[in-house]
Amino acid sequence: MTSSFVINKLVVIGIGLIGGSLATGLKKRGACREVIGIARRQDTCDQAVALGVVDRAYLSLAEIAAELGEGDVVFIAVPTLAVEQTLRDIRQHISPAVTLTDGASVKGSVISAAEAVFGELPAQLVPGHPIAGSEKSGVMAANPDLYENHRVILTPVASTGEDHLRRVSCMWQAVGAEVLSMSVEEHDQVLAATSHLPHAIAYSLVDTLAQDIGNPNIFRYAAGGFRDFTRIASSDPVMWHDIMRANKTCVIQALDLFIDNLMRLRAGIETENSEYLLDMFTRAKDARDKFTRMLAQDHSSHK
Amino acid sequence: MTSSFVINKLVVIGIGLIGGSLATGLKKRGACREVIGIARRQDTCDQAVALGVVDRAYLSLAEIAAELGEGDVVFIAVPTLAVEQTLRDIRQHISPAVTLTDGASVKGSVISAAEAVFGELPAQLVPGHPIAGSEKSGVMAANPDLYENHRVILTPVASTGEDHLRRVSCMWQAVGAEVLSMSVEEHDQVLAATSHLPHAIAYSLVDTLAQDIGNPNIFRYAAGGFRDFTRIASSDPVMWHDIMRANKTCVIQALDLFIDNLMRLRAGIETENSEYLLDMFTRAKDARDKFTRMLAQDHSSHK
Repeated sequence: MTSSFVINKLVVIGIGLIGGSLATGLKKRGACREVIGIARRQDTCDQAVALGVVDRAYLSLAEIAAELGEGDVVFIAVPTLAVEQTLRDIRQHISPAVTLTDGASVKGSVISAAEAVFGELPAQLVPGHPIAGSEKSGVMAANPDLYENHRVILTPVASTGEDHLRRVSCMWQAVGAEVLSMSVEEHDQVLAATSHLPHAIAYSLVDTLAQDIGNPNIFRYAAGGFRDFTRIASSDPVMWHDIMRANKTCVIQALDLFIDNLMRLRAGIETENSEYLLDMFTRAKDARDKFTRMLAQDHSSHK
Repeated sequence: MTSSFVINKLVVIGIGLIGGSLATGLKKRGACREVIGIARRQDTCDQAVALGVVDRAYLSLAEIAAELGEGDVVFIAVPTLAVEQTLRDIRQHISPAVTLTDGASVKGSVISAAEAVFGELPAQLVPGHPIAGSEKSGVMAANPDLYENHRVILTPVASTGEDHLRRVSCMWQAVGAEVLSMSVEEHDQVLAATSHLPHAIAYSLVDTLAQDIGNPNIFRYAAGGFRDFTRIASSDPVMWHDIMRANKTCVIQALDLFIDNLMRLRAGIETENSEYLLDMFTRAKDARDKFTRMLAQDHSSHK
């Protein structure tokens, strides 16, 4: 039987923002035959089905493993440090013909987990990372258009199967994403700088104000700019705990570069070095303005 | 002649975002008889009149000083470190009956400037600071509703005249702002933590990525969250140079508390101290969620 489905069945392990948004995005676009969810709690299963995010939901992969074969995709969307245990379940139950991919924000730790579980990297595994998210989490936050005009980075390795890679690329394109490819190492460095470092800073800034400044009314005087600046500090603590640990080396490198830069700024303020302050602020403004123009162009070229 | 005007004439020195928004906000609400702008460049004068931001505009305060008396307000909206020179012009030309106020983000430096210029703090001076802004600047960015539902902090001192204080309060209320009062010291500490520190961090983060990371494509992989997080790094460099210098002591204190907090986070990541990371991220998320609920309540109670 032929069909216009991009993939056959999608199994989402972990029905939160990332997994739920892919599930409902593919359903909305008629891009897969059926979406099956796997969650740790019956509540989440019931809610995901009731919301129409998935067609069916189960507590265990074992219950549906026998249904899956070539053309089906398992998407691992659990917190980064839970990927290894999930891969053990998969190895035990799922056929090597099924395509595996994931949405973890750190790719080195997924590769290590797969090596630990499979002994070598299986052809069926396509490590991936959708660069999209929200400070919201959970199945209620699932959004079929979350990936529209967003980038997905795949980090295939030498052993990755061509068919599996093609299937995962098509799946992400079907929900409106642009698919890029890079090495595991470059991915983890780039994400440490553009995402993990900003989250570390945002959490630390809010904690400084809440704990260290010693003024219980401090937030009363913060304005809308502060709300935007600290939005990412409302992100899920467990998810970010996992990411910081999993990408420890790259995050520490990025943090050290930032702390050095901030210490130079501190010195510039202390010595009232106008030239340094004006140069640095102007350089940063130019870089940030250029970045937003690039984002705007990307969005208009996608339309 | 009686009228329903809240103030008589408003003179705005510096017709940028802050001054222009007050001017056009009062005009839109019929809250003052006439708005006069003073700018350093003829271009700005012409543009401000053409845009309807002010009724008339001049290059020098001397040209209109003779018109001003009791009931009129001069609003100083120049970069923080230019306030002292502006106060010298005012002292030379403007009657002590005219109310003076300002919008500088640092109040200690305005008080010092006024003491240097007047010898003592004049009764006519009401130091103030509207907690509103944008990464945009200049007269084109003037917005009559900028202050709607925003806070304005006044920092009157012992010598401040009651009538002048009342007039400035009414002026800000007329454009929809909530007026609060606090000491100069508390203002400068609170703003260092909630505004000046976040701007220092945002500039430094963008500069770290642009200069220090060593990947010319780094911004290509940053997503919408990064755009929001760094929005304030597009703010006016001269304005922020002045603020960092003028509030040097409080900014350094806040920076040091933040750097200490960030170093503790760095240690937590390096030692994979899960308890520390989860506690800190959860504490920060809770504080930030509480803050946004408070902002939402404020906005609904204003409606």
